[in-house]
Amino acid sequence: MKNPLIITIGREYGSGGRQIGQALAERLGISFYDKQIISLAAKKSGLSDEFIANNEQRVRSGLMHNFAASAGYHTGFFSAQYLPLPESIFISQAQVIRDIAAKESAVIVGRCADYILAGRENTINVFIHAPMEVRVKRIMELHSLDEAAAIKEVTTSDKERGNHYFRYTDMKWGKAQNYDVCINSALMGIDKTVEMLADLARIEET
Amino acid sequence: MKNPLIITIGREYGSGGRQIGQALAERLGISFYDKQIISLAAKKSGLSDEFIANNEQRVRSGLMHNFAASAGYHTGFFSAQYLPLPESIFISQAQVIRDIAAKESAVIVGRCADYILAGRENTINVFIHAPMEVRVKRIMELHSLDEAAAIKEVTTSDKERGNHYFRYTDMKWGKAQNYDVCINSALMGIDKTVEMLADLARIEET
Repeated sequence: MKNPLIITIGREYGSGGRQIGQALAERLGISFYDKQIISLAAKKSGLSDEFIANNEQRVRSGLMHNFAASAGYHTGFFSAQYLPLPESIFISQAQVIRDIAAKESAVIVGRCADYILAGRENTINVFIHAPMEVRVKRIMELHSLDEAAAIKEVTTSDKERGNHYFRYTDMKWGKAQNYDVCINSALMGIDKTVEMLADLARIEET
Repeated sequence: MKNPLIITIGREYGSGGRQIGQALAERLGISFYDKQIISLAAKKSGLSDEFIANNEQRVRSGLMHNFAASAGYHTGFFSAQYLPLPESIFISQAQVIRDIAAKESAVIVGRCADYILAGRENTINVFIHAPMEVRVKRIMELHSLDEAAAIKEVTTSDKERGNHYFRYTDMKWGKAQNYDVCINSALMGIDKTVEMLADLARIEET
């Protein structure tokens, strides 16, 4: 029997990647994971949801180098409790992602899921992006912000996501070759992007 | 009336990007340009096809820096005959690409066409890639090479394409955000990738 289908989605802030992931999961009739992962991970590691939510993506450039030597954290050799906190969070989340992938088809947004499931069959790794001006407009509307505040939020979030991804995977976030499909959500809009990805998932399934 | 539809395709060596472009143009019933551009450009600049073919992508890392100051070569301000040769080739090809885009729908493979047509409506910029091992296998079969020779050819060609793209566009080749759609051709294979891109072009047209 084939593995369950897993679609991982990395996304630029404000690109609609989370919304696309959720709609795609609904369209395909499979599970959707985003913040649920934090909750599941917290239960495994014994840390509170709030603590993980506050720390999980607060990886700044300056910190990255301190962890360059922490090889092996994704191999499962180390127990989460003996590692510095951010690594323990990453390991807990990685285990949750592997558990999901072992039991059911799902869309998983963020959390370096593409890297965690690298080499797994029946996995489609997607990256969603959009031009800066489109993302800023979206965030202004969604969060009722003025343009300057929205630009700041988009820029900061992208930087944090890029740093987070690089820190744990040693790969460049948003490099086409690291994904199966990258798409500019502004090309066709959210709904048609979902449609295209659903078609692709069905093609891949056959 | 809408602009003619232009699909530009950048591609890693051995990814099948050219083949995908050609099949896609056939499927959509539009023109296909690849080496024809060299020929057309040669006619405009008065250089022989052979000369352009031999020089066009021979941009080595060491050379790049010499041209860092050559700003403005893509603005159309300079006449090709007063510029160093590689710039004149680029300008001639850029003009050919703009002429095509003004008159007919087409698939254009390579030649930094995405950059040359930046900001143009009804343009879809695609990047095709595939894992190294898949590309090496393809080149071994296509060119009857052993594995070592195929690896060398793939690596060298990728490097030349990346340098060429960076030299003329100042942007990173294969960075997802520079394209509308990037796809790993090994995910679904050549035929299904063509099918997906044709569907996408039709969605975009409606």
